[in-house]
Amino acid sequence: MRVLAFLDGTLADPDAAHIRVDDLGLMRGDGVFETILVTDGRPRELGPHLDRLARSAKMLDLPEPDRAAWERAVRAVLDNWSGGAELALKLVLTRGIDGDPEQRPTGFALGMEIGAAVLRGRAEGVAAITLDRGIDPGLAERAPWLLLGAKSLSYGINMAAIREAVRRGADDVVFTASDGSVLEGPTSTVILLRGRTILTPPEHIGILPGTTQAGVFRGAEKAGFATKVEPLRVDDLLTGDGLFLASSVRKLTRVRSLDGTALPAATEAHAELSAAYEAEYA
Amino acid sequence: MRVLAFLDGTLADPDAAHIRVDDLGLMRGDGVFETILVTDGRPRELGPHLDRLARSAKMLDLPEPDRAAWERAVRAVLDNWSGGAELALKLVLTRGIDGDPEQRPTGFALGMEIGAAVLRGRAEGVAAITLDRGIDPGLAERAPWLLLGAKSLSYGINMAAIREAVRRGADDVVFTASDGSVLEGPTSTVILLRGRTILTPPEHIGILPGTTQAGVFRGAEKAGFATKVEPLRVDDLLTGDGLFLASSVRKLTRVRSLDGTALPAATEAHAELSAAYEAEYA
Repeated sequence: MRVLAFLDGTLADPDAAHIRVDDLGLMRGDGVFETILVTDGRPRELGPHLDRLARSAKMLDLPEPDRAAWERAVRAVLDNWSGGAELALKLVLTRGIDGDPEQRPTGFALGMEIGAAVLRGRAEGVAAITLDRGIDPGLAERAPWLLLGAKSLSYGINMAAIREAVRRGADDVVFTASDGSVLEGPTSTVILLRGRTILTPPEHIGILPGTTQAGVFRGAEKAGFATKVEPLRVDDLLTGDGLFLASSVRKLTRVRSLDGTALPAATEAHAELSAAYEAEYA
Repeated sequence: MRVLAFLDGTLADPDAAHIRVDDLGLMRGDGVFETILVTDGRPRELGPHLDRLARSAKMLDLPEPDRAAWERAVRAVLDNWSGGAELALKLVLTRGIDGDPEQRPTGFALGMEIGAAVLRGRAEGVAAITLDRGIDPGLAERAPWLLLGAKSLSYGINMAAIREAVRRGADDVVFTASDGSVLEGPTSTVILLRGRTILTPPEHIGILPGTTQAGVFRGAEKAGFATKVEPLRVDDLLTGDGLFLASSVRKLTRVRSLDGTALPAATEAHAELSAAYEAEYA
């Protein structure tokens, strides 16, 4: 099941064509997106997701997204969803048609079923590998034109990294900087467990601020965990008490192994953190 | 004027929608492209462009492009073009629809008029700035998942770099590596003139092999220039006898200034090299 809505709130057939070949989102990967988890009709972290969409748009010099229009499109999808209790809601905003003198952006919201691989990862965890992202931790601040930390439609590298993981018999990736710092997953935020503390790397090294990571941290603090934002190294991930990749649709997915080294299952802490995260939306 | 053709040779209205919202080319910038210059009905370097499309597709683990189908689409556009003597012909190949079990790629050829900015750049040259691309020259070979040197639809950075140039009062960009090596332009290849020698950086540092650069080199050799492929530094560009950015639609465009420093106009050599390049297609 899929439901598609445009920014004026109108619905459209998701199996029909709606995008021109000269849309810059297609021709140049020139646009931004968000993926939101919806459970029982309620979008999780809609405000932070729309904030981040606006932040990404600003990094790409796109016009500020019309918040009311995005809320309308989200509402239109949810009001017309007749599938399962959970869905992934994708928001896409592009620079619009190449050469359009008014340069009107293209935008839509698409509700989709959660994929089988995601559900499997949630239940069983994933095997991950580290891959060099080729950047140094100061680059994002030094070179904003590299769009590090923007959720851009130019996700070719992220997809290629996941294919590389699959080629090596794994499921997912933890990107590292040239100095060995831990960055993020291609579609997730890294969260490390160390005793009763959870840790994640700082945004300024060129990673996406995680909406799910923020929700997990909020819930975890209420459940008595300490939280820290600090630089992490691969060795930290290998010697911790558990490793997770957080994303909207995957929630808090356990990393079973990193570069072939088995990691602590952290079954109890994972259950506790997951419950604390879910309690944020109860 | 625009003419759009699909891989089966059928024509379609370029002002209508033909792409689904869940095409991975749009959703993930997951695909490859080429831009070909056509003059008087003849596509320049069609073979090398199709070779490079296949090379990019391979780097992205896309199915090998069907060469006969692409030639058919190109022919369909050219047979139906009734605009000016010159056009830009864009070939786009995406991974296709998200979740399609057969994962059939999307492909089309789009003929377009040459933009005013391109014509101005050809006539007047451009002002360029150097921007850090944040990579080291060994990265492309070490980390193929970063797709350096693939002509991928994920061109968000390239577009952002050009906006940064415009913000700084310039027109175009020369990307540099973290060690100061010269890489390429966001949509062009760097060619330096030094006496009667023209030089360009080697592909293996993570840049796109230039089809126009290759044509220029071929023509220049016949016209008595020496050609060299070797690493270049920004200082080389500043102390040479002329600097050019080569691309299919812009041909051999002069760089008038780099980071605000005026460069030699190289009027005579530019005319000679341009004539030698044109002679390849006479």
